[in-house]
Amino acid sequence: MSAHQLEAPSRTLMGPGPLCIHPRVYRALTSPVIGHLDPAYLKVLDRIGELLKMVFRTANRLTNATPGSGSSGMEACVANLIEPGDPVLVCVSGYFGDRIRQMVERQEARVSLIEGEWGKPIDPELVRRSLKNTRCKVIALVHAETSTGVLQPMEEIARLAKEHGAMILLDTVTSLGGVDVKIDEWGVDAAYSCSQKCIGSPSGLSPVTFSDRALEGVSRRKHPVRSWYLDISLLDKYWGPSRVYHHTSSSTLNYALLEALQIIEEEGLDTRIKRHTRNHKALVAGVEAMGLEMLVAPAHRLPSLNTVKVPQGIDDAKVRSYLLDAFNLEIGAGLGVLKGKVWRVGLMGYSSSAENIIFFLSAMGQALAQQGYKADISAGLSAAMSALKQ
Amino acid sequence: MSAHQLEAPSRTLMGPGPLCIHPRVYRALTSPVIGHLDPAYLKVLDRIGELLKMVFRTANRLTNATPGSGSSGMEACVANLIEPGDPVLVCVSGYFGDRIRQMVERQEARVSLIEGEWGKPIDPELVRRSLKNTRCKVIALVHAETSTGVLQPMEEIARLAKEHGAMILLDTVTSLGGVDVKIDEWGVDAAYSCSQKCIGSPSGLSPVTFSDRALEGVSRRKHPVRSWYLDISLLDKYWGPSRVYHHTSSSTLNYALLEALQIIEEEGLDTRIKRHTRNHKALVAGVEAMGLEMLVAPAHRLPSLNTVKVPQGIDDAKVRSYLLDAFNLEIGAGLGVLKGKVWRVGLMGYSSSAENIIFFLSAMGQALAQQGYKADISAGLSAAMSALKQ
Repeated sequence: MSAHQLEAPSRTLMGPGPLCIHPRVYRALTSPVIGHLDPAYLKVLDRIGELLKMVFRTANRLTNATPGSGSSGMEACVANLIEPGDPVLVCVSGYFGDRIRQMVERQEARVSLIEGEWGKPIDPELVRRSLKNTRCKVIALVHAETSTGVLQPMEEIARLAKEHGAMILLDTVTSLGGVDVKIDEWGVDAAYSCSQKCIGSPSGLSPVTFSDRALEGVSRRKHPVRSWYLDISLLDKYWGPSRVYHHTSSSTLNYALLEALQIIEEEGLDTRIKRHTRNHKALVAGVEAMGLEMLVAPAHRLPSLNTVKVPQGIDDAKVRSYLLDAFNLEIGAGLGVLKGKVWRVGLMGYSSSAENIIFFLSAMGQALAQQGYKADISAGLSAAMSALKQ
Repeated sequence: MSAHQLEAPSRTLMGPGPLCIHPRVYRALTSPVIGHLDPAYLKVLDRIGELLKMVFRTANRLTNATPGSGSSGMEACVANLIEPGDPVLVCVSGYFGDRIRQMVERQEARVSLIEGEWGKPIDPELVRRSLKNTRCKVIALVHAETSTGVLQPMEEIARLAKEHGAMILLDTVTSLGGVDVKIDEWGVDAAYSCSQKCIGSPSGLSPVTFSDRALEGVSRRKHPVRSWYLDISLLDKYWGPSRVYHHTSSSTLNYALLEALQIIEEEGLDTRIKRHTRNHKALVAGVEAMGLEMLVAPAHRLPSLNTVKVPQGIDDAKVRSYLLDAFNLEIGAGLGVLKGKVWRVGLMGYSSSAENIIFFLSAMGQALAQQGYKADISAGLSAAMSALKQ
């Protein structure tokens, strides 16, 4: 070991991501590094594409993972689908919807904006009205808003998009692999996710999928895609049968992603989604029995990411520091308008487990006690255990 | 292990990258995954920045690694420095110079082009003439052209840039960490590299450095940077003291990069550069004693990437397949106009070793014999051994 080796602390990760990964995924990281055009490696990429189709519930030919974090996938979707002057409807009710807006504006699109309340889903009625009044090429929205813990119902918006011939660009960063994502059923034309949340891999890759309609649109663009690095036509030539070199794909990260996807296949996607839902309900039962409140109404809660209100008089940052220092437990802070107002508790992939729920409730109880807030930890643990049995 | 586990063959990597990595770097990959805002992780990013300054030979405050392959760093440099309408001089004498041109054109800059011969460096006289005739904001060029194996002399071009007040944007993808790169001495304003070549880490990160002058230029832009993902001002807010969340930085890749950089520090950058030069000379001595020819004239050869001419009548692809199938040895194919005409033999980082040189010469001798070409392997090995002793 190096004399200069920095400490690499071992954390229990229950924030918005990254989450803890399976020991098998750690082992996959040490698979020998291999060339990006090695025939053996191209099979790995093909298999990743196949497994991602299963997780996205799509038959889209162009399904793989862009080299970068989830935001690289967001930029790939936005920069390829949207050209200067395109009419785009962006739905914002959280930090990541707003990030989409920023990216869309950098394409110099004509943006119509629906601004919803943070902590609530977008009202489809607002989408209906906007589509009635304004021509729209793309509706961009977030399926699972990581900043608020809201799961966006998709059926009505999907129906409206179909009716008006608009494409859907969807953020599934915090849903894919743990919450039902139905790309083909909803008629989504471009979607992106990340490797480090419900998928259960380290960060550094962003699963993406593009419909044939989306790709036809890209091929008819009047302006070249502003990003060379994330030009989907160039990526397609590397991922597809022509195998034209584009970038040096990271075998390290892709081996890990493949192993994580194989774990999903073995568990079964439906079983995995049920596990995420059950564990989410147990966490909520525990949190509420301890006297804490959830931000989001029951009907719209995102199972993978739970936003718990910071009680009156409690210092949010002190609680998070205490959890990290005393127990090596990471939870997330609030973002944007929710800064200091909520904690974000992730239950995703390998981190979505009974042991983590019990650990979190106990640790949070201790952290709150440091600030004189007496949470009923016993009641919390009992409620969580009951819910886990259901 | 998974029933579905795909084979992960163990290759000796002597192509243009990725290269083989040190066992310590493999171990670093299994350091526990950690949050991108964890105080312990932010120290890792700081230390990476410090070590990259040492390798780039720069005091540039903004020095770290963008999340993606080397082309993400290329796009970060191009997209931030260049706005629509900017006069830019692009020097192209290989595949990667041409990639810069493509990216610059996507920024809708006014491009002046110097097209040099593939296999030779850019003639500074052409740069002088261009600067005399046309205003220029940025001169973009490649220090180490991975497609041709040419090392571009920088002194005269650096002097011209200073004289005309033009900024230099430099590709150091195949030089950084194995060949001398002098960012501050040359007055380079933006440079990028990759993690998987002379640095000795897996692919997935791109070291970048920006001068204060470059950053001042970015802050005065008339148009927003077209890439949100690679907007250097946003990256600066995350890497710098304000620690504003931008993307989920991959702790896995950054732990590995840190370990690789620490290995460079322990070896000593000057010693490492000498090792790359000595091994390059030994490979060339061996190749030439075997009757093969190098593409590039001695004065302009890139020590890290050796372009060997495919002899008349020899099928390039068959040789590469044979090396891969019989010996698990990867070397690179020619790119662009050099397709089928050269092999690209990388000697970088952990892969730059006496054992790899001897192995390559022997294996290449066997591969050529398959096609009836009798190379004098004994002479090649003797010549390489003599050169290694110097």
